[in-house]
Amino acid sequence: MTKDSLLAELRSIVGAANARVDTTETACYAYDATHYTHHPDVVLYPATTAEVSAILTAANRERVPVIARGAGTSITGGAVPIHGGIVICSGRMNRIVEIDTENLTATVEPGVVLATFQAAVEKLGLFYPPDPASLSVSTLGGNVGENAGGPRGVKYGSTKDYVLGLEIVLADGTVMRTGAKTVKSSSGYDLTHLFVGSEGTLGVITQITVRLLPLPEAKRTVMAIFDSVEAAAKTVSATIAAKVVPTTLELMDDVVIDRVEAYRPCGLPRDAAAVLLAEVDGSQQGVARQVELVAEVARNGGAREVRVASTTAEADTLWAARRGAFAAMARSRPTIIVEDATVPRDRIPETVARIKELCLKHDLQIGILAHAGDGNMHPLIMTDLRDREEMARVARFVEDLFQTTLAMGGTLSGEHGIGHLKKRYMEWQHGSVGVEMMRRMKQAFDPNNILNPGKLLPDQGEAASDASSLLD
Amino acid sequence: MTKDSLLAELRSIVGAANARVDTTETACYAYDATHYTHHPDVVLYPATTAEVSAILTAANRERVPVIARGAGTSITGGAVPIHGGIVICSGRMNRIVEIDTENLTATVEPGVVLATFQAAVEKLGLFYPPDPASLSVSTLGGNVGENAGGPRGVKYGSTKDYVLGLEIVLADGTVMRTGAKTVKSSSGYDLTHLFVGSEGTLGVITQITVRLLPLPEAKRTVMAIFDSVEAAAKTVSATIAAKVVPTTLELMDDVVIDRVEAYRPCGLPRDAAAVLLAEVDGSQQGVARQVELVAEVARNGGAREVRVASTTAEADTLWAARRGAFAAMARSRPTIIVEDATVPRDRIPETVARIKELCLKHDLQIGILAHAGDGNMHPLIMTDLRDREEMARVARFVEDLFQTTLAMGGTLSGEHGIGHLKKRYMEWQHGSVGVEMMRRMKQAFDPNNILNPGKLLPDQGEAASDASSLLD
Repeated sequence: MTKDSLLAELRSIVGAANARVDTTETACYAYDATHYTHHPDVVLYPATTAEVSAILTAANRERVPVIARGAGTSITGGAVPIHGGIVICSGRMNRIVEIDTENLTATVEPGVVLATFQAAVEKLGLFYPPDPASLSVSTLGGNVGENAGGPRGVKYGSTKDYVLGLEIVLADGTVMRTGAKTVKSSSGYDLTHLFVGSEGTLGVITQITVRLLPLPEAKRTVMAIFDSVEAAAKTVSATIAAKVVPTTLELMDDVVIDRVEAYRPCGLPRDAAAVLLAEVDGSQQGVARQVELVAEVARNGGAREVRVASTTAEADTLWAARRGAFAAMARSRPTIIVEDATVPRDRIPETVARIKELCLKHDLQIGILAHAGDGNMHPLIMTDLRDREEMARVARFVEDLFQTTLAMGGTLSGEHGIGHLKKRYMEWQHGSVGVEMMRRMKQAFDPNNILNPGKLLPDQGEAASDASSLLD
Repeated sequence: MTKDSLLAELRSIVGAANARVDTTETACYAYDATHYTHHPDVVLYPATTAEVSAILTAANRERVPVIARGAGTSITGGAVPIHGGIVICSGRMNRIVEIDTENLTATVEPGVVLATFQAAVEKLGLFYPPDPASLSVSTLGGNVGENAGGPRGVKYGSTKDYVLGLEIVLADGTVMRTGAKTVKSSSGYDLTHLFVGSEGTLGVITQITVRLLPLPEAKRTVMAIFDSVEAAAKTVSATIAAKVVPTTLELMDDVVIDRVEAYRPCGLPRDAAAVLLAEVDGSQQGVARQVELVAEVARNGGAREVRVASTTAEADTLWAARRGAFAAMARSRPTIIVEDATVPRDRIPETVARIKELCLKHDLQIGILAHAGDGNMHPLIMTDLRDREEMARVARFVEDLFQTTLAMGGTLSGEHGIGHLKKRYMEWQHGSVGVEMMRRMKQAFDPNNILNPGKLLPDQGEAASDASSLLD
């Protein structure tokens, strides 16, 4: 079959207006939030599961890569069509199919934007906790593909903790349904969770059923300011050890505080070494007690000042610094790289110290803007992509960081996934046997390797040895 | 290799005293809580992962079945060595390796008894929610294998919601580690959850890391008595719709009430049609508010009486009926079969009505002792295994029940697994494509089919057509 006749077939499936090959359009699907870019050959906007199925049947027959894409906010190259092929944009599959207030579940198409979904459930007094920073644009399909997290992960986990069932179009076009609309199920292998975080490499998700929670009655915010980043880091695990699990527990170090105050002052003391920002939620009375406990642990941990918001407006003021932090950092240098290694919570002080050492070792500017409560360290590396020598140092920093955090029982990624960027490190975490078993999963679901090829698993023979390859 | 030389090899791995072939010993590993029985050829009691690895290396080479076994409390035939072979008993691998109060995690060997583990974490103010009725004897390894649930599933889910990582010996003896000691991880395919609920068919679990919660500060119990089982059933979803998620929400129907009062009177009115029993937990103030709400919803739902326990002793009195219910039912007839089909919560009234209809249709005595809050209906079928004609009616009841509950978006099993008993129904829930993909998972991990063969997946060509085969 010629390329033209495949294109004609794809056009007949989705309609000519929904199959685009012009470079002005393909350019919009060539990137994600990394520096990787590659144009797809064609962008398709199917509206139904049947259309997705027909697309995959054709693509599988012709061995053409298929990349399912949400909003393209991934920061590991996960959404970039590095081998070209077909991008399936979920934009037209954006219906909230059902919000079930009796079962506390919802069913959505993959293109639903997270913020839209959260607003819809919150209007009904319900709550969908995952809150990646990209929530105003990122889609539920993308969130499931990457197992997205966010600050609330401390108390509420990540996307995987909410997905009950999926409709998936497999590589050959077959439609499979997994899971059930029940909070408990023990019926065969858990294929649902195999797909959560699989980054579009095992199938194309066309419908998602999630569980919801009642919206907490109240929430409160506390900020604690420290003269030592170590004291702030120790306070994180001391908080958890005190049996308080805040909704969020964020840490900003001196580098971040300095940039925030330089960019848009929020009243943070520029001589502070670190700030912890916590939100608690629950019943009215429950949050009052939790706020007291968080404040007490922070004071005992050496906080020089603890601010408790008594109104929503005051809470907003405290959160302004955190919300503006990424933008403030991004103004400092041409390129900002967000690392995502995650450690067990009690290793945070050690990890913070190690990151500071590695900054000096590799002569880099790095701020820490961590979801500290769940050990998701998020060092922000301020650099310049055009400077190959500095980028090589960045790559060596990242390697050192992974070796440190994996040795502590941590993970390569807390919430951003593996994508293209981190696949060469997979054996470091999972060993050759883990990677081999993952390869068998890929082989079982996508024998022709058409689904988001070149992602999540290392290429055969690819190793983490060449540090400068972060630039590749 | 002869059978004798394999036995000699196995003895050399675990020590002669830990390899038993005498029928007095093999008889203890021939059964579970179903009527299936089959002696293993040998029972091994390894003490270390290395020993398990050596056993599997030998068994895989010789193509001998291996059945990993905890306490054998499964009620689907899951633990029965139906094709003989080697039973690996986890009894000597029963160390609590670590309870980490800073990370709120614990790591255990598979033979740790759940009640022992829960007592150990509760002493530290921590909480591991899964609470199958078998908890005083069942093991964490068995719980992970079956994805065990329990009454607290309403609020806290089941075992899968707590497992963070596993150490697994694969079929060929290779040791694999999955997951991380972090609450968030998005690093490759989620092999951890593929193993939870896999019933020993993909590998032998040798270490388990779970997350823990802070022990709730307080809990309270409410009982509501109804003149109509439909009203009680409607109150279940009305409670959830009122945005109260109790820890447990149990339903007993008139059949169960009658047997309980006949066996060991607990003060339940014998003319009542149903009783709902709820426990709520949280902060002191939070539970007071939740109790009020649960009581209010029950009254609005037509409860003729609502009893709120104000002391622990009063709560114990209310729970006595529930705790004694299974024993009371078991005294009624020679055989009691616990069904495990689970439906979305809003379908409970319809499901209860359907179960009552099916009782009449198939002329069976059935009581409902449901974890109603999560839709886990648990009809208890009082029958007699020796009566082939009645057992054939039981089988037809079960088929009708599955067809009803699956059509509602439910699942074959909420918490007991598939095992040998339900494998013939797998296609009804998962379709031929779902079953085919599960077969590929099995093939990928256990190409020689040595791990708990004949469980979870239907035999090739096996269908749910011959209802009387429940007796096979």
